[in-house]
Amino acid sequence: MLRTHTCGSLRITDKELCVTLCGWAHKIRNKGGIVWIDLRDRYGVTQLVLEEGITPVEVINTAKDIGREFVLSVSGTVLERQSKNNKLPTGDVELRVENLVILNESKIPPFTIESETDGGIELRMKYRYLDLRRKPLQDHIILKHNIMQYSREYLNKNLFLEIETPTLIKSTPEGSRDFVSPSRMQPGFFYALPQSPQLLKQLLMISGFDRYYQFAKCFRDEDLRAERQQEFMQLDCEMTFVTQEDIIEFFEGLLRFILEKVKQIHMSKFERLTYSQAIKLYGTDKPDLRFGMPFVEITHLAKGSGFTEFDNAELIVGFCVHNSANFYTRKKLDELADFLSQSHPEINELVYVKCESHDNFSSSVGKIFNKKQLGLWAAAMNAKPGDMLLILAGKCACKTRTALSDLRLRIGTDLGLRDVRKIAPLWITDFPLLEKDKETKKYHAMHHPFTSPKEDEMDKLENNPEAVFANSYDLVINGHEIGGGSIRNHKRNLQEKIFEIIGIDKSEALEKFGFFLEALDYGAPPHGGIAVGLDRLCMVLMGEDSIRSFIPFPKNNNGRDVMLDSPSRLSNEQLSEIGLKLV
Amino acid sequence: MLRTHTCGSLRITDKELCVTLCGWAHKIRNKGGIVWIDLRDRYGVTQLVLEEGITPVEVINTAKDIGREFVLSVSGTVLERQSKNNKLPTGDVELRVENLVILNESKIPPFTIESETDGGIELRMKYRYLDLRRKPLQDHIILKHNIMQYSREYLNKNLFLEIETPTLIKSTPEGSRDFVSPSRMQPGFFYALPQSPQLLKQLLMISGFDRYYQFAKCFRDEDLRAERQQEFMQLDCEMTFVTQEDIIEFFEGLLRFILEKVKQIHMSKFERLTYSQAIKLYGTDKPDLRFGMPFVEITHLAKGSGFTEFDNAELIVGFCVHNSANFYTRKKLDELADFLSQSHPEINELVYVKCESHDNFSSSVGKIFNKKQLGLWAAAMNAKPGDMLLILAGKCACKTRTALSDLRLRIGTDLGLRDVRKIAPLWITDFPLLEKDKETKKYHAMHHPFTSPKEDEMDKLENNPEAVFANSYDLVINGHEIGGGSIRNHKRNLQEKIFEIIGIDKSEALEKFGFFLEALDYGAPPHGGIAVGLDRLCMVLMGEDSIRSFIPFPKNNNGRDVMLDSPSRLSNEQLSEIGLKLV
Repeated sequence: MLRTHTCGSLRITDKELCVTLCGWAHKIRNKGGIVWIDLRDRYGVTQLVLEEGITPVEVINTAKDIGREFVLSVSGTVLERQSKNNKLPTGDVELRVENLVILNESKIPPFTIESETDGGIELRMKYRYLDLRRKPLQDHIILKHNIMQYSREYLNKNLFLEIETPTLIKSTPEGSRDFVSPSRMQPGFFYALPQSPQLLKQLLMISGFDRYYQFAKCFRDEDLRAERQQEFMQLDCEMTFVTQEDIIEFFEGLLRFILEKVKQIHMSKFERLTYSQAIKLYGTDKPDLRFGMPFVEITHLAKGSGFTEFDNAELIVGFCVHNSANFYTRKKLDELADFLSQSHPEINELVYVKCESHDNFSSSVGKIFNKKQLGLWAAAMNAKPGDMLLILAGKCACKTRTALSDLRLRIGTDLGLRDVRKIAPLWITDFPLLEKDKETKKYHAMHHPFTSPKEDEMDKLENNPEAVFANSYDLVINGHEIGGGSIRNHKRNLQEKIFEIIGIDKSEALEKFGFFLEALDYGAPPHGGIAVGLDRLCMVLMGEDSIRSFIPFPKNNNGRDVMLDSPSRLSNEQLSEIGLKLV
Repeated sequence: MLRTHTCGSLRITDKELCVTLCGWAHKIRNKGGIVWIDLRDRYGVTQLVLEEGITPVEVINTAKDIGREFVLSVSGTVLERQSKNNKLPTGDVELRVENLVILNESKIPPFTIESETDGGIELRMKYRYLDLRRKPLQDHIILKHNIMQYSREYLNKNLFLEIETPTLIKSTPEGSRDFVSPSRMQPGFFYALPQSPQLLKQLLMISGFDRYYQFAKCFRDEDLRAERQQEFMQLDCEMTFVTQEDIIEFFEGLLRFILEKVKQIHMSKFERLTYSQAIKLYGTDKPDLRFGMPFVEITHLAKGSGFTEFDNAELIVGFCVHNSANFYTRKKLDELADFLSQSHPEINELVYVKCESHDNFSSSVGKIFNKKQLGLWAAAMNAKPGDMLLILAGKCACKTRTALSDLRLRIGTDLGLRDVRKIAPLWITDFPLLEKDKETKKYHAMHHPFTSPKEDEMDKLENNPEAVFANSYDLVINGHEIGGGSIRNHKRNLQEKIFEIIGIDKSEALEKFGFFLEALDYGAPPHGGIAVGLDRLCMVLMGEDSIRSFIPFPKNNNGRDVMLDSPSRLSNEQLSEIGLKLV
């Protein structure tokens, strides 16, 4: 080893020890006769001191050439610092340098290597290896490492096997576009990169592996945004001979274990809502439960009083914001209305009712509705003096709920209720099995086509498939969908029935999924599983708003790796070897 | 859970317990009034018993429909067996079935689900999910899981971080052909799948992550054979501020830990040979050291005696096979000669000398060389009475050594010296930095172009680059290259110099590796690493001869996944979206 200690390890108990450290020159302060250098590595920072008259002259001379981010090897004696720095674990000591070697030089970095840097996003993406030197990013990568290790600890203890599945598989569209890779040995034929290892993990259950997991790289050729990258990592799991309840309890245990280990948060039982409860109460299937403000429908109370906006509405719905009547001034209410008209132009009006006392209200519709009417709304929403009701109405109940959900999140942010240190996990269950596309009138699977219907609803499958609920579940934390899964179909005839309902006819089913349908013929056990987005879990636990800073080398929104300068052109030779021509 | 216990867990201490098991009907024996079913899952086999008069009639009736590989749920009482089976951990008990549900049926499998199956390789590849039910394959997948977990235990304890690198990267040919993936957002541009995360892990060191590992999927578009697949997994590691010796010792420790944990083998220090020693002693840089038979050169003793074959040779070299003079009959020697002429037609003759006593020899060249001459050879090879010398001569020393190496392995196999239970690890060090292509006269990097030359040989780099040795090392076990690595170049000028020597000019270097050369400008620390082929390690530890049975879903030698039927055609729509046309 080129060092005896790391830059994070020296303590007062090491006083007088002769040590060698290696690291990067983080900060250099030259005060006439004394030079201090903060030497940094992954483990911490140690202060070096060079003093004229004490430090050998040749060392002082070498030190004169050192710039920021130079790589140094220094040997010397550990001293007690005169002015201690209690913000640093190494802050009680410094190293009196007796020998110094510049292991490598550095140009001046294009941005500062500090927690708060002066570099813009473009520059930091290009010099990602320098951005990754900054403590916040190092901490993110270490968090991800820790979550992976604790997950394995929990899963291994529970007899799960970590099993890899192939990356070069078959194109079987699963909702998103596949990345493909041309075959050289069979020109004109293509492999596909997996959108998820769904069928392969089900095959592993059919093979009898019983409990499987994998941190699987998944690939989706979609347009990118903060929560999505073309390639991402999911903790992919599957279990045999289990019920939905078993999987939920088991993976709730995993999440609880991770939260304890990496955030020292001890959670009791996670909240649960059915899909329809979530939609009714929060207008979304991934509500942020760090704060309340559940929806209350007042259609029956507010419709038919001559206020056109309400009279034409399918749904009139609102929520109560406690103790906010004073906070929301006219100006702030205008801002909310602007926010709403921009994000949801189909909603014409934001109605507010401020409860000044139990029978006195100030409201945007105070001229239309009398005190008694407003009092009924306030009672329905359990409002107290000082509270404010926000109410939307729309011709489409669904869109109205979505708009109110966005308004709720906006209010939560305004009032500081979306505390990044708070973790509010929630299971959503009882999703519908199918969704009907409004335009094509076709059904498609809400989760994926391998999800099983609830057993007691099989009889509706033929004549009323929309009404069938699925054995599927999502894990939501702080308003983000972190994971989801289902109990799968393990009988061939049921799987074929579902393909038929979603418009995959027999021959297409055989062509795309023939291997899998055949596998169901050979003793497929009841099984189910879950997949958890690892990058997104990290993002939510750290209260960040992009998964990018948890991926060492991410791509930008155009799918480019600006550091590697990829994707790039192929040579004609490469193209002809794989039998392709550019259009 | 659909079960209370697994099929491997019941013991005599569970007698009288009421339990529910789930699993596959492995064997069914019907002896008139009694039916026994072996119920199997990943954890073991438990015997079920159904007896007319005791077992409920409806259960007996259901049981009549059960065939091999049916999936069952059974409840009943644990009984002590009358005739115990001490080969099974559950062999003291059986389950008297009181309730039985057929969870799923099974067609008759196309081959038997037994350790020794009657299925051919083609059939087993097509029905891989059934092949994976067989115990040997289950054991292989579990071994791989265990090696991964123990590796992480060792690496995590030593402060390594598990960090992922991207799969969609840039095409920078590294010896083999890249798999590529077309970009939809930028038609005409391609990502490449990594042949290894080499440069990305070096960037992680430049970022200061200090110690990194990853079980990395790597992709090489090469023709396949037993030891190679298009995608394979390597344990990829890199460390900062270390010497070659540190890395060798550290990863020797890892291998020792794995061997102890998964094979209960306690190894002392691994053997080491320099590259030139290995070539001289065994004719290969990956010798199988489970047995001896080192080469002895006798050119100086045997040349110039009028035997044309020897007189025209650049090298005359052989080894001594102890106590084998009687074993190798004329017929067996003819077989060896046939083997040699088929695999190495450039070698004209296999010369043997059987030592009958210390001064009496029977030899294929006994008419040309006298006893004294043969005695000198025998002495040089340290032969004793009963031993046999095998000697080859050739016009090209290199080819002669290769032929003799193959002969040595053949003899080792013949004599049962390549014991699959024996593990003989070996480090090969001091590889040449460069190789000269005999045809093009161009240099190329023996390891890869990022490997550093030995520091005290830098001065030869300009004028005599062939003579420069590298800071690189291979780990060989039982004749297989299991891993390899090097200390890398961390200074830009040296890296550029090496590109220049191997014929990558400045503009090509900038185009392909510009991002990396630039990274070396910003304080790149000294670093090095290693990559271990996980599938190959499993293969060697289990004494198997193909990596395929350690990969859950492998491809055949034509790169096809015959189960998934992949690669496959794309639709014209998919092709036009990525801007491609088939030639």
